[in-house]
Amino acid sequence: MQERFPAALAAGLLSLSIGTPVQADYLVKEVGSFYVGGKETALSGQPPVEIAFSPGMKPLKVDPNGEFEVGQMYVQYVKLAQPKSKIPVLMWHGGGLTGVTWETKPDGAPGWQQSFLAAGYDVYVSDSVERGRATWSRFYDSTPVFRTKKEGWELFRIGPPGSWDASPARRTAFPDTQFPTAAYDQFAKEYTPRWLTNDKLILDAYQQLVERVCPCIVIVHSQGGWFGYTTALNHPDRIRALVAVEPSAAPDPAKVEAARLRNVPILAVWGDHLATHPQWPGFVKQSETLRAAVREAGGTFDWLSLPDRDIRGNTHMLMMDRNSDQIARMVQQWLGERGL
Amino acid sequence: MQERFPAALAAGLLSLSIGTPVQADYLVKEVGSFYVGGKETALSGQPPVEIAFSPGMKPLKVDPNGEFEVGQMYVQYVKLAQPKSKIPVLMWHGGGLTGVTWETKPDGAPGWQQSFLAAGYDVYVSDSVERGRATWSRFYDSTPVFRTKKEGWELFRIGPPGSWDASPARRTAFPDTQFPTAAYDQFAKEYTPRWLTNDKLILDAYQQLVERVCPCIVIVHSQGGWFGYTTALNHPDRIRALVAVEPSAAPDPAKVEAARLRNVPILAVWGDHLATHPQWPGFVKQSETLRAAVREAGGTFDWLSLPDRDIRGNTHMLMMDRNSDQIARMVQQWLGERGL
Repeated sequence: MQERFPAALAAGLLSLSIGTPVQADYLVKEVGSFYVGGKETALSGQPPVEIAFSPGMKPLKVDPNGEFEVGQMYVQYVKLAQPKSKIPVLMWHGGGLTGVTWETKPDGAPGWQQSFLAAGYDVYVSDSVERGRATWSRFYDSTPVFRTKKEGWELFRIGPPGSWDASPARRTAFPDTQFPTAAYDQFAKEYTPRWLTNDKLILDAYQQLVERVCPCIVIVHSQGGWFGYTTALNHPDRIRALVAVEPSAAPDPAKVEAARLRNVPILAVWGDHLATHPQWPGFVKQSETLRAAVREAGGTFDWLSLPDRDIRGNTHMLMMDRNSDQIARMVQQWLGERGL
Repeated sequence: MQERFPAALAAGLLSLSIGTPVQADYLVKEVGSFYVGGKETALSGQPPVEIAFSPGMKPLKVDPNGEFEVGQMYVQYVKLAQPKSKIPVLMWHGGGLTGVTWETKPDGAPGWQQSFLAAGYDVYVSDSVERGRATWSRFYDSTPVFRTKKEGWELFRIGPPGSWDASPARRTAFPDTQFPTAAYDQFAKEYTPRWLTNDKLILDAYQQLVERVCPCIVIVHSQGGWFGYTTALNHPDRIRALVAVEPSAAPDPAKVEAARLRNVPILAVWGDHLATHPQWPGFVKQSETLRAAVREAGGTFDWLSLPDRDIRGNTHMLMMDRNSDQIARMVQQWLGERGL
């Protein structure tokens, strides 16, 4: 995990004020959305179901059999009238979450979607297959799992393992945490059921997205890391930069051709307290292994460990942390240095 | 169903071109989102589940028991820097659908969200409890039902009952349909599972939304009609106008105090071919009954039947129909006449 964020750049970043607002009015050409991916699937042989379409209505017997769309992904974009960047930023969320990850933060302050719009990028925020406005279906090969508030609190390193308590007053966060802990229950409203068997559907949809709207910059978080790395391996010509925020997995260079990422600048961003959790060191290790292979092939794979920059207390949800604007600007500066 | 849309207004509307683009760049202050409603619910006594948080990872035994947020609603807003209207428009979708209803249409053309932004209104689009980015839970009192493509095609009056066919080439739409039928499968990607037992949760969340962001204009569709009428009955001081697009139900004036809507101008908007479907005349009748009671109490309840205005072929999804801009402008003109 040796830190390789360019020193000159970092020196400049340290002079940026955390409190500078990212808000500025911007001229919008269009707010819009579309679906990519998915296909028709049919159900047959099921008995009728009773549906009351409105209150007080006598339920009707309805045939549940027929055709459905399955496996699509939802994408919402904000296109600026005068973007400063020629290519858009795509934001891909993590597991058990949706595109809301990038919007207004649980404490009501603006998130990375706003920060990147204000900085002059068109922004595409997606809800991956099975989540959010992508909707979900009965046709997956498993049953969904649900994230408890305890799991989120500890896995996202707001507090150490064992620090969760159902009573907000008795939860123990890391003393230096950047997460707005008073808004944690609000954040938990974003948690969405997840299936563990849909990686192929999800990857197909992301690839269709990239084929449709790129060249682009892709910013991924957590579970999105796997999809971002893999899509970049498959479409290195279309992804001009990949920013991986705490990617929870990475393809094994023994199984993929890491040299294909030679011309895709990559920046991995890490928060604090990684060593305190039983899973995180292993998650980080995967990106370190891929980083070594990409560098070996002559590629750029930068590593921004926030605590190594004396920025302490960031959680896995660092785009929601109190200093999220500061981190967004570090990412924007890194992109700017690459002409993006 | 006698039509009462003011004649002078209608005459002006007929001169509007269907083709006039609603697109115009607009200065945005903020794109943001928040959750309203919901509360903590706990699960206990369940055995461990196995979760692999990333590809290739050995699954961990995870305790599924704990606390969850249940019953929240998601709300996304676009606030203009210089809105022409002092109060925002809230858009509430119908059953088995999400806020995507109001966004880009399935054929890729801009929908009502864009039309109202371009006209100078701040717009709030919500995903009701259990749907879209509101996410869903295991704690409802029923199992979900799923909309087939056939059900949507016929219930939304794109074609008459019995006209559905899985093969697009063999589906028979009404000859004059305004729905972009080539985009029907794309539209079906928006269909989301629904539970039939959540009306109270949903209504609670809508009321919290109104308490938070109104005074406002509320535009509802289909199942949203029930929630819009009921919320207006409970908060007549906060809803300055209610536009009910094909409301599928209305409170019975024998059970509610319709006079409370005396100062809430209401416009109901109806598409074509209502009489061809076994359910629709009954759905319409409910709003007619409420209309009579509101007018009896001295209130304004206008009735815009599009076919009575020689606008033919509109479906239940008239905000996605080819002439959706024309209808949006009729609604905006009606609001304008009320100083909104």
